[in-house]
Amino acid sequence: GMGPAKKRKTLPKPSNPLKSFNWSKLPDRELQGTLWLEIDESKTIKQLDFADFDKNFSAYQKKGNDESDDSYGSFKQQKPRELTVIDGRRAQNCNILLSKLKVTNEEISKAILTMDSAEIIPKDLLEQLLKYVPTPEEVSLLEEHKDEVSNMARADRFMYDLSRIVHYNQRLNCLHFKKKFQERMSDCKPKVEAVMKACREIQTSKKLRKLLEIVLILGNYMNRGARGNAGGFKINSLNKIVDTKSSLDRNVTMLHYMLEMMEKKFPDVFKLDEELASVPLAARVNLGELEKDLNILRDGLKSLETELAYQRNRTSQDRGDKFVSVMGDFKTVSSISFSKLNDLLEDAKERYNKVCKLFGEDPSKMTLEEFFQIFDVFIQSFSEAKLDNINIRKKREEEEKRARMEAERIERDKLRKAARRAKNNKNGEGEFDD
Amino acid sequence: GMGPAKKRKTLPKPSNPLKSFNWSKLPDRELQGTLWLEIDESKTIKQLDFADFDKNFSAYQKKGNDESDDSYGSFKQQKPRELTVIDGRRAQNCNILLSKLKVTNEEISKAILTMDSAEIIPKDLLEQLLKYVPTPEEVSLLEEHKDEVSNMARADRFMYDLSRIVHYNQRLNCLHFKKKFQERMSDCKPKVEAVMKACREIQTSKKLRKLLEIVLILGNYMNRGARGNAGGFKINSLNKIVDTKSSLDRNVTMLHYMLEMMEKKFPDVFKLDEELASVPLAARVNLGELEKDLNILRDGLKSLETELAYQRNRTSQDRGDKFVSVMGDFKTVSSISFSKLNDLLEDAKERYNKVCKLFGEDPSKMTLEEFFQIFDVFIQSFSEAKLDNINIRKKREEEEKRARMEAERIERDKLRKAARRAKNNKNGEGEFDD
Repeated sequence: GMGPAKKRKTLPKPSNPLKSFNWSKLPDRELQGTLWLEIDESKTIKQLDFADFDKNFSAYQKKGNDESDDSYGSFKQQKPRELTVIDGRRAQNCNILLSKLKVTNEEISKAILTMDSAEIIPKDLLEQLLKYVPTPEEVSLLEEHKDEVSNMARADRFMYDLSRIVHYNQRLNCLHFKKKFQERMSDCKPKVEAVMKACREIQTSKKLRKLLEIVLILGNYMNRGARGNAGGFKINSLNKIVDTKSSLDRNVTMLHYMLEMMEKKFPDVFKLDEELASVPLAARVNLGELEKDLNILRDGLKSLETELAYQRNRTSQDRGDKFVSVMGDFKTVSSISFSKLNDLLEDAKERYNKVCKLFGEDPSKMTLEEFFQIFDVFIQSFSEAKLDNINIRKKREEEEKRARMEAERIERDKLRKAARRAKNNKNGEGEFDD
Repeated sequence: GMGPAKKRKTLPKPSNPLKSFNWSKLPDRELQGTLWLEIDESKTIKQLDFADFDKNFSAYQKKGNDESDDSYGSFKQQKPRELTVIDGRRAQNCNILLSKLKVTNEEISKAILTMDSAEIIPKDLLEQLLKYVPTPEEVSLLEEHKDEVSNMARADRFMYDLSRIVHYNQRLNCLHFKKKFQERMSDCKPKVEAVMKACREIQTSKKLRKLLEIVLILGNYMNRGARGNAGGFKINSLNKIVDTKSSLDRNVTMLHYMLEMMEKKFPDVFKLDEELASVPLAARVNLGELEKDLNILRDGLKSLETELAYQRNRTSQDRGDKFVSVMGDFKTVSSISFSKLNDLLEDAKERYNKVCKLFGEDPSKMTLEEFFQIFDVFIQSFSEAKLDNINIRKKREEEEKRARMEAERIERDKLRKAARRAKNNKNGEGEFDD
């Protein structure tokens, strides 16, 4: 068979510049063992009509309506043709974005150089712009036509103009990072603080410890043998309390019973839900996601540092180029903010490890979310059962009141009948009036 | 502080059997370093009213309506009370299942011993039954009350009766496996076969290789410099062909153009979609899920083997116990079926590795799904573009027909006018009739 390198076949040269085909070429060194070494396209080359292909896939797009029927169209061919070498789908989407932005290429260039001090690029559109940074291949394709700049289609022209900026890609990424920084910090910080607070609340709550005492006593009282005689229990047991129903009324659980009892005998424990106020928030924090978010911030700062070093080292810069001054200041301030947040998260994780072990759990096996969710679910059941008890009490009072009034009514009727009979006897009338 | 073991506190004994509390006890060895060693419940014990608790959480459930108001209820207390020690929520859900099954405990026991030869337990309800196998703790709780079997609540009685069967849990699992076996095989087998076929089709398709030739030629023709001069390309390039639009008509892509051309010059390649018929099916197979499914089958067969060994070793078995005979046969047959399927999957995976490398891809980096999906998407685009071309052709023919008839109409009018003028001249009438 053939050796590792493939012999190149002779192809004709196009008579006009052509559109590009956005393939992923396989380099020669990766052809070994592939079917490409078995493919010999020499015969097929002779069968293709390249002249016809040139006409249909010229880099010069026919402007105007897109009717395929060209029979009346000789005058149409006299319209100026746009040069378009950028992949069709990509160009189309880029144009859509540019329509939304409503600014000239020059205005965008200026915004990039000043890190958008005039704030003409909204955050969400900037994110889209990142997708349309020309690749090195696209840049070299466009540069082949730099003497026809005024003929370029919109997307092509945009990519060409922006590629004139030194390190356009890196600057755009830094600008995006700067615009998103505050939003990301505001998203992360409350989550980290909630975890910190919830750990502290659970660790120090006296009401919680009193509750655990009561549950331990009752559990040992109810459970005999191997299931009883416990020195402690796992915290997920708290959410099993509602599964034990009263033998007098299936709608009343052991939790309802405990709350009735605690309201009278342990009124401070009765207010446990108020003492663990940060737990519901902490229960919604996903640590993995939170760490990913902090990694984005960390990596962004590193990239910014790299780019600042590069830009500072440049011997010649345009007068309009404000990257170093603007981003230098930004980096100083944002690094401090991030550092504080990062330290806070490390503290929170350390504190979680401690409080987890305090309850006999293994922090490597129980995630932060699982831990707080156990308490969150319990606090919700606790609060709901308190409301249930109030309703039950009301119903009982109304029922007792009704019973009492019924009893009084019966009593009054008795007295009235007795009084009437007495009166009749006095008047000498028959006994059988009523 | 206290030593690692906690001193046990003295608790009163309940005056009647109590409901259980389904907690997860922390063994003494796990109390080290926890807050449990700081908890001393001795004082709190004195504050609790255990007699009241006994009344509210007796193992004997008050039967009848669940009104909490007991004022008129002295006659209600004379109703027989059910014994219920199983956790309330679990018992309730078990009862719901038993209502759906509509069979007696004895009928279920018989079904378990005969591996449901009478087929009284539907597959889906059997799956539910697995959840209500009594735990060792529940069994010992129930056995404490075995002299009151006739008082037991429904779920308690069910769990007690079924726990009389030796290895009830294992038998139930084997029965479930047996019932699900065919369904699982029928789910897996076509998927494995589709992968096998699709690999073969892609590997051997001559039409595909011809197509690749044509695309290679055109790509090298269009792409200059570093992007051109390729000996081959990555297969995801096939789905970029539609991104290159015709310069005469944006609605026409390079794929449409190639199909028009191939219909005339390479009619066999034109029918490529017919040759890769198994690809769409293979593209929907998730290898990870498929391997999980086979693992379930493999593990089930192992468990079955273990249980058969146990049951065969028993010196005394009930005459009604058909486990060994029924499951022995089943195991023999199912092992063979599974073995074949397993080997087929290994072959398919091996074949995928080969075909993947044939296209210059790395099977450790490209999953089976990704690979087939590239071809699946391409085949869909291929078929759609063929239909588009038919429609474009129709429209063009109608347009040409209309133009032709219009031209003929104009021609006929001309002739009619000329004929009339000739007639008028002959008759000596004015020239200006029409």
